[in-house]
Amino acid sequence: MQITLLTDFGTKDYFVGAMKGVILSIDKRAQIVDITHEIPPQEIRSAAFTLCACFRDFPEKTIFVAVVDPGVGSSRRAILVETENYFFIAPDNGLLSFVFNESDNFRVFEITNENFFRKPVSQTFHGRDIFAPVAAHLSAGAKPAEFGKEITDFVKFEETKPRNINETQIEAEIIHADHFGNLITNLKKEDLSENFVLNIGEEKIEKLQAFYAEAEKSELFMIFGSAGFLEIVAFQDSAREILNAKIGDKFIVDIK
Amino acid sequence: MQITLLTDFGTKDYFVGAMKGVILSIDKRAQIVDITHEIPPQEIRSAAFTLCACFRDFPEKTIFVAVVDPGVGSSRRAILVETENYFFIAPDNGLLSFVFNESDNFRVFEITNENFFRKPVSQTFHGRDIFAPVAAHLSAGAKPAEFGKEITDFVKFEETKPRNINETQIEAEIIHADHFGNLITNLKKEDLSENFVLNIGEEKIEKLQAFYAEAEKSELFMIFGSAGFLEIVAFQDSAREILNAKIGDKFIVDIK
Amino acid sequence: MQITLLTDFGTKDYFVGAMKGVILSIDKRAQIVDITHEIPPQEIRSAAFTLCACFRDFPEKTIFVAVVDPGVGSSRRAILVETENYFFIAPDNGLLSFVFNESDNFRVFEITNENFFRKPVSQTFHGRDIFAPVAAHLSAGAKPAEFGKEITDFVKFEETKPRNINETQIEAEIIHADHFGNLITNLKKEDLSENFVLNIGEEKIEKLQAFYAEAEKSELFMIFGSAGFLEIVAFQDSAREILNAKIGDKFIVDIK
Repeated sequence: MQITLLTDFGTKDYFVGAMKGVILSIDKRAQIVDITHEIPPQEIRSAAFTLCACFRDFPEKTIFVAVVDPGVGSSRRAILVETENYFFIAPDNGLLSFVFNESDNFRVFEITNENFFRKPVSQTFHGRDIFAPVAAHLSAGAKPAEFGKEITDFVKFEETKPRNINETQIEAEIIHADHFGNLITNLKKEDLSENFVLNIGEEKIEKLQAFYAEAEKSELFMIFGSAGFLEIVAFQDSAREILNAKIGDKFIVDIK
Repeated sequence: MQITLLTDFGTKDYFVGAMKGVILSIDKRAQIVDITHEIPPQEIRSAAFTLCACFRDFPEKTIFVAVVDPGVGSSRRAILVETENYFFIAPDNGLLSFVFNESDNFRVFEITNENFFRKPVSQTFHGRDIFAPVAAHLSAGAKPAEFGKEITDFVKFEETKPRNINETQIEAEIIHADHFGNLITNLKKEDLSENFVLNIGEEKIEKLQAFYAEAEKSELFMIFGSAGFLEIVAFQDSAREILNAKIGDKFIVDIK
Repeated sequence: MQITLLTDFGTKDYFVGAMKGVILSIDKRAQIVDITHEIPPQEIRSAAFTLCACFRDFPEKTIFVAVVDPGVGSSRRAILVETENYFFIAPDNGLLSFVFNESDNFRVFEITNENFFRKPVSQTFHGRDIFAPVAAHLSAGAKPAEFGKEITDFVKFEETKPRNINETQIEAEIIHADHFGNLITNLKKEDLSENFVLNIGEEKIEKLQAFYAEAEKSELFMIFGSAGFLEIVAFQDSAREILNAKIGDKFIVDIK
């Protein structure tokens, strides 16, 4: 079975290697795929977007392990989510908010069965001690209900969707900044009209383009990116730097 | 079948994960190998060198996917190249210039058959929507000619080889700077005589060594690197920083 | 068989791709796992710690290839180590010091049999030309003794363990700085008493915590990390930057 990994652990340490070792020790046939380990430290929102942007491209039954976990060692819960096509394993901190939004039928289980953990369970590295071995045991054939009881009070972010202020204004949010400095917002086509203007910092942005190859250098414009969200882009430049923007920044959209 | 990936997408986003998901959804048995995703943004020359430096180390029938694609969304073509031992899938922008130079028999096909694409095809992410699924279908058994018609007017860079100015001077070029700050040139042993001097910026470099472990700290010298090209190296230091050099910089070689 | 890779080659060049190509050309069924390629250049100590921190999480018979090799091209030896559960392939420069410390029975072989090398052997890239093919041949069934004769005078660092100065003082050392800026020391629980104080730079650190989630922002404290070593941590900040510390820095511990 495919097991994908998405974390903020970076790639310079032993953290990712240890998770892979644990997985292969339990299920040698698991096919491990790195999505990324460079989520900005503890940026749950950025992790939630990144997972949302690619999970539907994977084969059915893929197991997605996502660990961005500021509350490791505290009492936050660990959850296993079964949707119609996939499995997700993550801390219960909102990381799977987009998955919940975009899945029709799903069940959420609290992971409590210590028989599936690596022992001793450290207080600092649940990626290795809980999330990785649970994924491997699931891959090897354990059933979701074996890991713990079903729950319904899991954590889900509100800000996965923009907020209507009034009939002509929406408050939206930056949810991710990519490798190229493009800013991904939480706005989708269905949230917007034909004509709209973004007010972000001192800038007004109203040019909407179909792709990257059409503007003047450093000109700011918008595209609907390959993940389905509206992105703020600067041609051959970094919109993040030009706007000095960061994840979580809010801005107003005027709908015409 | 092995499918290798080489891009400028970076590793912090969902881009590479999405490509892998698409591949595994089509051919679950594909063995995906990352060459690198950190080609400097849009540096086709650097990608061309990197691919050239390692493709012959892979097993026969390996499929190399290389996506450094400033023209994505425009009318640049996508190509599939079949050589005696390998397959290459890339935009038609010169990225495969070294492969063409170093292969005796090869055929080039323009990729046009949309049956092999991920739908809808975005205008910004052909890595996911065209190059990845084409590689996976090839791995799963489709024949090169099924993807489109054969062409002969593909793009090939001239600067893959140095230029003779006169009998004692050659104009050469920096084609890559590696992790250690070594500068890789487009010069090979057969381009040079026994004695030669590099004139680069204000510096004259004439010391040619067999390996790294012999010089004074920060001393500039030359070696023939493990990829077969002449490299400019600073012992325990970065030649790139000392010379303030960048990819595409030209310099003169005096042949004695 | 699993083959893991741990190097200081970085991930932006063809180096890692070439090693993987060589391995797969010899043993197509090898399952290659990256531990990291971002060991700080030539930091043997950091590589030794990283390997030590995760090798026991891998399945039995895993082959660990570790290449941090300032002496490449010189006369330093290459070694293959067989322990009760694992194989290790590395330059003979101390990189396996922790493995030697933590393994009861092991044999060390000098790698000299050129039949297992990629030809020609370059003087700059033994990762590709010696370490990778040796690992692949071992994975494909060759026996350790086929690679060269057994030796006992291999290199092992002393500083893998702290040094007792007197009954109340220990000299310890920073052996690694991780992605989050945590400083890993060579101190283990058994080296310390109930109460102790670290004297590092101008700071005295005496707060020992069970996990990360309990302190004030930027407050320095200590934890026993997930690899079993004492770590110096700053809550939501980088201890490395606050203390301006680097790998190899020594400090005094007062035992009470």
